[in-house]
Amino acid sequence: MGAPKLTLGFDADDTLWHNETIFEAVHERYRALLGRYHDTETVDRTLFATEMRNLELYGYGVKGFTLSAVETAIALTDGKIPAAEIQQLIESGREMLAHPVELLEGVAETVAALAAEYRLLLITKGDLRDQERKLAKSGLAENFAAVEILSEKDEATYAAVLRRHAVAPEHFVMIGNSLKSDILPVLALGGAGAHIPYHLTWAAERVETAPAANGRFRQLEHIRELPAAITQWPT
Amino acid sequence: MGAPKLTLGFDADDTLWHNETIFEAVHERYRALLGRYHDTETVDRTLFATEMRNLELYGYGVKGFTLSAVETAIALTDGKIPAAEIQQLIESGREMLAHPVELLEGVAETVAALAAEYRLLLITKGDLRDQERKLAKSGLAENFAAVEILSEKDEATYAAVLRRHAVAPEHFVMIGNSLKSDILPVLALGGAGAHIPYHLTWAAERVETAPAANGRFRQLEHIRELPAAITQWPT
Repeated sequence: MGAPKLTLGFDADDTLWHNETIFEAVHERYRALLGRYHDTETVDRTLFATEMRNLELYGYGVKGFTLSAVETAIALTDGKIPAAEIQQLIESGREMLAHPVELLEGVAETVAALAAEYRLLLITKGDLRDQERKLAKSGLAENFAAVEILSEKDEATYAAVLRRHAVAPEHFVMIGNSLKSDILPVLALGGAGAHIPYHLTWAAERVETAPAANGRFRQLEHIRELPAAITQWPT
Repeated sequence: MGAPKLTLGFDADDTLWHNETIFEAVHERYRALLGRYHDTETVDRTLFATEMRNLELYGYGVKGFTLSAVETAIALTDGKIPAAEIQQLIESGREMLAHPVELLEGVAETVAALAAEYRLLLITKGDLRDQERKLAKSGLAENFAAVEILSEKDEATYAAVLRRHAVAPEHFVMIGNSLKSDILPVLALGGAGAHIPYHLTWAAERVETAPAANGRFRQLEHIRELPAAITQWPT
């Protein structure tokens, strides 16, 4: 008998389906709305600072973003923003939640092919109901043996996920677009990671340092490269 | 050897710690804020209708409640509510999230005693991070073998929880303050339920019909009655 098969963990937003593009479109409207009061750089910087300050209380996801956007708009206009424009921000949030799920190119075939060979876990963070709804809409749900929606992705939460599913870190590969949330904590636990960047990265997910080059890390450009990369993985 | 031991599922909000009292205090302030425009009955009815309309998109929890409260305030004032008062609503939401966790009387001792005898699961719904934070603050976390934060509590989600933890419904007792969310779906699956009402019940959790009387349902007045009730349970 060979070594135990790998378990593959997949991030969801911007790894399987488009997400940051939806946020970016809403950001664009937000800058236009507040453009009468402040330049783009001030709007972006203040909104991001509000989001980071609220992150501990709100967690990740559209609802917390919307509350931070309303709070920032009130602060940046000294309370002069009309209520009708605050209502527009709330409606933007609802549109984001109701947005269709658009898979990245190559995802449907690649995930289905890998599901036939390996055990797949979906490991994501954000609003519970929103992530469940996106998975249901994606048509990908049946490929995953389990779904883990976390309030944070760090060494402690990945370690808990691996324990719950009885996976040894050395038999685990995490695939995602964020070095910070998907790759670095898993490498730190002794697991492996495949980084597939999305063309946009939210400022809070950016890291400056690439992971130390070793056999447990792969940098890919497209999910279609994943099956071949995995067959070469040391298990 | 006797029959397998029971697994006990505990609801959290208003079963282990106070929650609806915190919402009710915020409701009271909300009625005062909008009292210049509408009578209490109209404010309550409109806010509840907004919450129910948004429930599918937002799910349960403080963030969705806050967004619905802002939306309702804008609608009920025809957009005349000042932005500073909307900011107050957002701050009320943050206060709710940061609120200390106050255990119900008798919970700490009873849960610890039961944890020594049975496997306990915490099964709750709401915002992921908020529920995790409350459990951490409660000091009760170590009593639970696992924590399940669900976006909805119905037959399908309870069935999935029981499967995940390899619990047969006939060896499962759910304890909670909501007949609708904690008791009826578990009875429908063939499990047992102990209902311990809280002195306030959110309108969305009210049901008119009591469960059919049978050996799998107990109505209790206080969590201190639970250990004795469980020893009499048919397993």
